[in-house]
This record gives sequence, C-alpha cells and structure tokens, in this order.
Amino acid sequence: MFGTVLIANRGEIALRVARTCRELGVRTVAVYSTEDRDSPVVSYADQAVHIGPGPAKRSYLNIPAVIEAARQTGADAVHPGYGFLSEDPDFAEVCGKEGLTFIGPPAEVMARLGDKCTARRTMAETGLPLLPGSFGPVASAQAAREAAERIGFPVIIKAAAGGGGRGMRVVDNLDSVLPVYAEVSGEAQTLFGDSTLYVERYLPSARHVEVQVLCDGHGEAVHLGVRDCSVQRRHQKLLEESPAPCLPPGTIDRMGEAAVAGALAAGYTGAGTFEFLVDADAEFYFMEVNCRIQVEHPVTELVTGLDLVREQLRVAAGERLGLRQDDVRARGAAIECRVNVEDPDRGFVPTPGRIETLELPGGPFVRVDTHGYPGYRVPALYDPLLAKVLAWAPTREQAVARMDRALAEFRAEGPGVRTTAGFLRRVLADERFRAGTYDTGLVSRLMDAPGTADAGPPTTTQPEEERA
Amino acid sequence: MFGTVLIANRGEIALRVARTCRELGVRTVAVYSTEDRDSPVVSYADQAVHIGPGPAKRSYLNIPAVIEAARQTGADAVHPGYGFLSEDPDFAEVCGKEGLTFIGPPAEVMARLGDKCTARRTMAETGLPLLPGSFGPVASAQAAREAAERIGFPVIIKAAAGGGGRGMRVVDNLDSVLPVYAEVSGEAQTLFGDSTLYVERYLPSARHVEVQVLCDGHGEAVHLGVRDCSVQRRHQKLLEESPAPCLPPGTIDRMGEAAVAGALAAGYTGAGTFEFLVDADAEFYFMEVNCRIQVEHPVTELVTGLDLVREQLRVAAGERLGLRQDDVRARGAAIECRVNVEDPDRGFVPTPGRIETLELPGGPFVRVDTHGYPGYRVPALYDPLLAKVLAWAPTREQAVARMDRALAEFRAEGPGVRTTAGFLRRVLADERFRAGTYDTGLVSRLMDAPGTADAGPPTTTQPEEERA
Repeated sequence: MFGTVLIANRGEIALRVARTCRELGVRTVAVYSTEDRDSPVVSYADQAVHIGPGPAKRSYLNIPAVIEAARQTGADAVHPGYGFLSEDPDFAEVCGKEGLTFIGPPAEVMARLGDKCTARRTMAETGLPLLPGSFGPVASAQAAREAAERIGFPVIIKAAAGGGGRGMRVVDNLDSVLPVYAEVSGEAQTLFGDSTLYVERYLPSARHVEVQVLCDGHGEAVHLGVRDCSVQRRHQKLLEESPAPCLPPGTIDRMGEAAVAGALAAGYTGAGTFEFLVDADAEFYFMEVNCRIQVEHPVTELVTGLDLVREQLRVAAGERLGLRQDDVRARGAAIECRVNVEDPDRGFVPTPGRIETLELPGGPFVRVDTHGYPGYRVPALYDPLLAKVLAWAPTREQAVARMDRALAEFRAEGPGVRTTAGFLRRVLADERFRAGTYDTGLVSRLMDAPGTADAGPPTTTQPEEERA
Repeated sequence: MFGTVLIANRGEIALRVARTCRELGVRTVAVYSTEDRDSPVVSYADQAVHIGPGPAKRSYLNIPAVIEAARQTGADAVHPGYGFLSEDPDFAEVCGKEGLTFIGPPAEVMARLGDKCTARRTMAETGLPLLPGSFGPVASAQAAREAAERIGFPVIIKAAAGGGGRGMRVVDNLDSVLPVYAEVSGEAQTLFGDSTLYVERYLPSARHVEVQVLCDGHGEAVHLGVRDCSVQRRHQKLLEESPAPCLPPGTIDRMGEAAVAGALAAGYTGAGTFEFLVDADAEFYFMEVNCRIQVEHPVTELVTGLDLVREQLRVAAGERLGLRQDDVRARGAAIECRVNVEDPDRGFVPTPGRIETLELPGGPFVRVDTHGYPGYRVPALYDPLLAKVLAWAPTREQAVARMDRALAEFRAEGPGVRTTAGFLRRVLADERFRAGTYDTGLVSRLMDAPGTADAGPPTTTQPEEERA
C-alpha cells in the first residue's frame, strides 16, 4: 500500500478519500485553494499544501502546482476525486512521468474512453448495444444535419470530449440542427478545448442507469450492480439509487456483464462507471464511460458493503481485487440525495454564503458525506454540493421513508442560503418515483408544478469544469 | 400500526425511537423533565409534554405523570426505551389498564424474568446451562455463606431485582461474605426496593456475550446473533461488537437456539436480550434476560440490516414477525463505542456541562446516535452517555480501523467537559482486543496502565436508576 496519497480535489470527496486513507494507515496530503482554506480536509489530512487562488485553473486544475505539492510532501500516489483533473489523461501521464501513481485507469485508456466517439466504437465492437447515431464525429454542421435526418428526431448533439452533462443539446426538428450545432460546438471548444461533435438518437422518456465496475491490473473484473440516476435536471443528477427499480429480471446482470466485457476490452483498471440509457421496453444502450469515482458511488457502497475508494487504492497499488462476481452480494436498497446550496424556487440558482446553522441527519442506516460545518462559508466559485445524504433499508419502500425522514432532519441556514433538501422531498413524494417507474422527465414535470420556476442552467459564477 | 406513540424516555434513545416512528408514519409524543427542555427530541417529536422537574422520580419514573401525558395527547402506545420504566412490570400493567399498548413483553413475563432467581429457574428448566449457584434466593447472610462455600470462590452476590450492572459484588473469600451480603442487601433495598439476593459462581476471565431475540405474539421467534459486551468497567459496558470474535464454529448458533427456546418458554414478546457468560473453554452460562431494547442494539442492526425499534413496534401492534431464522443473515462486523462525558484520567468521574464544540464522525459505514449538538448542556442528573459511535465493515479488522478513524473525528469540547473517546481508542489499540481474545478484565488491565486512575463508581450525582 502507498505511504502517502495526495488528494487532488476539494469538498466532500477530498474528505471522503482522506477517511479511507486514514483507515488504511496511509498518510494524506490535501491541496487547497485560497477559497478553501477553511475546508475540513485541510486540517483532517496529515499535511496540507496551498496550491493557488480560488479559480480552479489556478489551483485544482493547475497541474504543475499539484505535482509540485506531491513532490514537496513525498507523496507516492495521487487520488484525483471527481471533476477537475480526474479524467485528464495529460495529468495521469504527467503523474506517471513524475513517479507518482495516478489512482485511476492508465492515461491511454482514459484518453480512448474520454473521447465519446472512440468509446462508442470500442463498445460497439465489444457487442454493447448503442443508440443509432453518427458512429464517429460529424465533420460539419451539414453532416450533422444529414445524420440527424437519417437517425430521426429527436436527436442529441454531443461534444465528443464532453461529460458530466455538459456540452450537449436535444434537437427535435431539422431546422434547429444548424444553429444548435454552432452553439454546442462553440461551447465544447470553450469548455473542453475540442469542438468535435457527434449525433445520436435522443430518448425522451428514458432512464439513466449506470453500472459500477472494478478491475485490477491482473485481469480480474467485477460489476457491483447498477445505479438509477434518472432524477436529473438539465443532465445534472439530483438523486441516485441502487438497485434500479422495476427492471425485468436478468436485466441488471446483463447490463453488468456487458459493462465488464467493455471494461476488459478497453483495458480498464480501477473503479469505473458505464452509463446506459434504458428505454420503456427495458432495452439498454451504452452512452459513455466515466473513468473515475462518481459522486453517487456511496449508494453502491451501501448495498454491497464495499468501500470503493479502498478498492481504488488497492488496485492502484497493484493488489488483486480478490473478488469474484459471486462474492458481490447486493443487499437492500440505497438512495443518495445531493443537497445543493441552490434555490429550487428560483430555477436552482446557486446560493453560496455562510451556513450559520447546520444540522445533519443521523441514526439508523443514514450516512452523510459533507465538508460542511456550522459556520462554513460555501464558496461561490465551485460546485454547489453541500452534502450527500444517504439512506439504506432492506426494501426500497423503507429506504424512501428513511430518506424522507433524513431530509426532514437536514437543516442548513444562513443569510441568503437555500438548499434543495425540500425539493428532494418532493421527488420522494412523487407517485411515479414511489412506484419506481419514473424516467429522466421526472424533475421537469415536478418543476412545471406550481411554485417552482426554472431560471435556466447554473449561472456563470459556476465554472462548469468543477461540476462532476 | 399505532397512530401515536408516547416515548417515555430521554436522550439518544428517545430520538432513536422517534426517528423510526417518523419513518413508519407514526405520530410521536415526547415527554421531558425541566432539565431536558432543550433536548432535541422535544422539538423532533410531533408533540412534547413537560412531566416534571429533573430528578427521575419526579418525571421519567413518575408513572401517573407519564400516563397523564399519554391520555392528554391521545397516544395509543408507549415506548419505554431502556432504563427508567422500561422493565417495570407495574408500569406495563398500568399502561394496559389505561388502554395503552406497552411496547415490550407482557407485564407478568417481565415480572417473572425481572426476578433473577425466577428467571434462572425458568431457564434451567428449559435446559439452558447455568453457573453453579443458589438456585433461588438465599434466605440470610448465613445461607449466603453456606452457598458460597458450596459453590467455591470467587462468587458473586447479586440482587434478584438488579440489572444494568447494579446491585452485585464479587467475593473471593469466606470472611467477606457476611459484610458484602449486608452491603449488597442494603443497596438492593435502596435501589430496587427489594433486598432479595442470590449467589453464583464468579468467572473472573469470562466474556459477556448476549443474544438478541425477537418474538411476536404468534409463536414466531428468531435470534439475531450475538453481541460481545466484555469491554466493561464495573459492569458498565463501554464498547460492544457483533458478532463475538473468536468463538468456536457453531457456538453462536447454539447460544441463539438456547435463547430462542428460553424466550418461547417464558412467553416472551418483542425484542429481548439473553445475557450469557462465556468461559475460556467457550462454554456459555445463562445470566439474565433484559426485557427491553438495549443501548447496544445498533450493532445488531448494522450486521442484520434490521431496524429493531421497527420490529418492536410491529410486534407490539400485533403484526407477525414474518422472519424465519434463515431469513436473518449477518453480514460483516459492527462495533459500538459509548462516548460518555466522563474523565478517564480521574476514574471516569462524570463531567457534565455545556458542549460548545461538537463534531461528529461521518462518511462510509459510520453511524452516530446522539442527542447532543453544539451548545447542548449535558445535565448532571442523568446518564453520562453523549453519543453512540458505530462502525461497520466486511471484516472485524476493517471495522476496528474504521471505528478508530471515527473516534479520531469525534470532538466534544466545553468547560470542564471530558469524554471517553480517547480511552476507547486505547481499547481498540489493545493487542488482545485486536486479536479478539479479550475478556471482562480488559478495561481494568488498561486502567492499571500508567496515566489512568480509577476513582471508584460513578459519583452520587448520577442516580443509579437512570443507567441502562
């Protein structure tokens, strides 16, 4: 096992990683921006290094600064968390050159899977079902128009380099293809430095279901079941659960086997996520691979009993997984609610500020992952995620009741601060959610209900790259 | 299910019960003493009734006041928690007469099992192994002396009405029997209003292992495995774990089957605990039955996935358990640490006072049950239990590492306030604890180590009856 791990991230995930390191007896180094100097991980870690001012480009995305912090502190590995540098093959490569183990898949695997077109090609070759679409990138707006016409509307135009719900837009008629292409292309260039786009069929009432995989470097690979992440607003997940409810028998196993086959074909190592869309007939289609730990990984932890960060560290240190598929036993049902500092009544506009009162839920089968504390000032610069509240129970129905109880206990107050906790309780109360028959349309349906206005995507105070 | 449950208790267990009620959609009524007016359950419950001043005899032990609160609020059931009225057959009987369901076994079963001599007789008849002792009560000091001589030293002289580690003393020579008899007899009269004593062999290096049982009123009964509660100071448990480590294969099943047989023979209903001593050869001996939820019930919840308070409510409402023994599957290992406001460096003297800073552990597989919050004033009148910190993991070794991580995260500060968190970390670090081969001598061995003095039993500011 590693002697010292540098955690190249912030917020709840940095603390999450530090906790597992401490359990493993691994020394930790936190890095932090000026804005984050009062974040708990700074004192929790064995050592902390200031790596620059608030804007991520000058700190959490500043590769030389992160590498220098690792060098100074004698770190032998880097955990990138999610977002920021976690899926940057260049960073993984630099780590390798500097003698640091990057806790994630090899740089070249990440590069291949990070390009959505190449990933689609690889998975199609492995036999994974794909939605009809432009197999590779579309060369021009005109080519996108032709592809869209061939595929049939609605289609979705996506940045090949995108991810995390950014750089994509739905088009439902031929006339809109050219302007939307121009828009997404420009956005992709700005966000990812790569304007390559592709087109695929858009399923309006689909479910977003993803498979968690674990692979070691010795040919062992298992899946840990699925997470349903259909509760989304503008492709941002608000609530996730495991297992996905109401899938026909055998579907989860077939999705899991497909994901494991895809991971092995891609030469994947570590923890990864295969995202699928599932249509109304429970047919599933590969979307993309996330080459990192996910925000929603704890729901999988709660049903499997595994600590995914521990598994990431073990695999990165060269250990064998030592897990056969039969050893992975899911038990009960788990739900995660992302409590963001956002105002659901004003289109989920972020409401950063000082949290004066923070009361967190507790008691049986409730877990909270947060970097918040009473007096914590949520910076305006980053992700509005304040806490992940999780509940587990033997059945989904009990887990829903428990989650509702937990959210009712959640209290965060401060001048101007609002959270999504109340809105999430509305999701839990929704009839189709309760029945387990919801899809990605659930949130907009709820938002059309009286009392909730959608003011649009996150404001520009939220640099997109920070969102995982 | 009940419409309204009155929670006749305080502190963490009152909040614990209220949480499950909320999940079940059951309305709750909290009762509180003047000292407890700022306790979280007062605002958490749907309604709260002040039942008297601080001293328990005038509030939590005041049966007419509790019954009156139930009447006023339209409660149809009473959950007694642990300690206080939880094992008082008179209270259970009064509840019944007032048309309130007492959430616990029938009054007559409680009376029979509450008398340790009768309980021993019942269990011996059912075939449970007992330590050699006076089968029934000893009629006089002289009879105790004769019994002790026959049994062989060391013996333990116990109050028949005792419980929770009170009203008992070890005697290791004939000359001490008479004075100790007088002492315990007087104490038993004061504490329990009943000076009846019995004598049994004392096992100096035994383990305290208890079986959790669940019985409905329809003849169904299961055990939920065992808890090792050998980490004790003066018969007060400090740390509990499930399963008990290092027992020979089959022992847990045999203990569980014995407890279920005993519970059925006694006509038990609800959640109950059969306490056993286990000697160095892993032979087990019945000690007593606790007719209530235990402080340490969450370790069983974490390994079985069951909510024991939910099961108590269901059974009390007349539902069938719907659980066969095969349905009960233990997974992994769980540990509970009782963080008390006591000073381990001054003989565990209670250190009540205002908690200005309270930071609780969180993250993967950690649970905290507490009624504390920043600014909470721990009353001097009651139990010094501030928080139960729990950790679960797939293996005991990982659970120990996780618990240590969790305790390291625990911080409670205030003028004069000390906690046992640091001492509990010393327990976790102990070689024999790590090996799982410890017994009830562990704590005194640690206390003999430099830096820890034992100043005697809790001071008189702690009314004994409040301790569970």
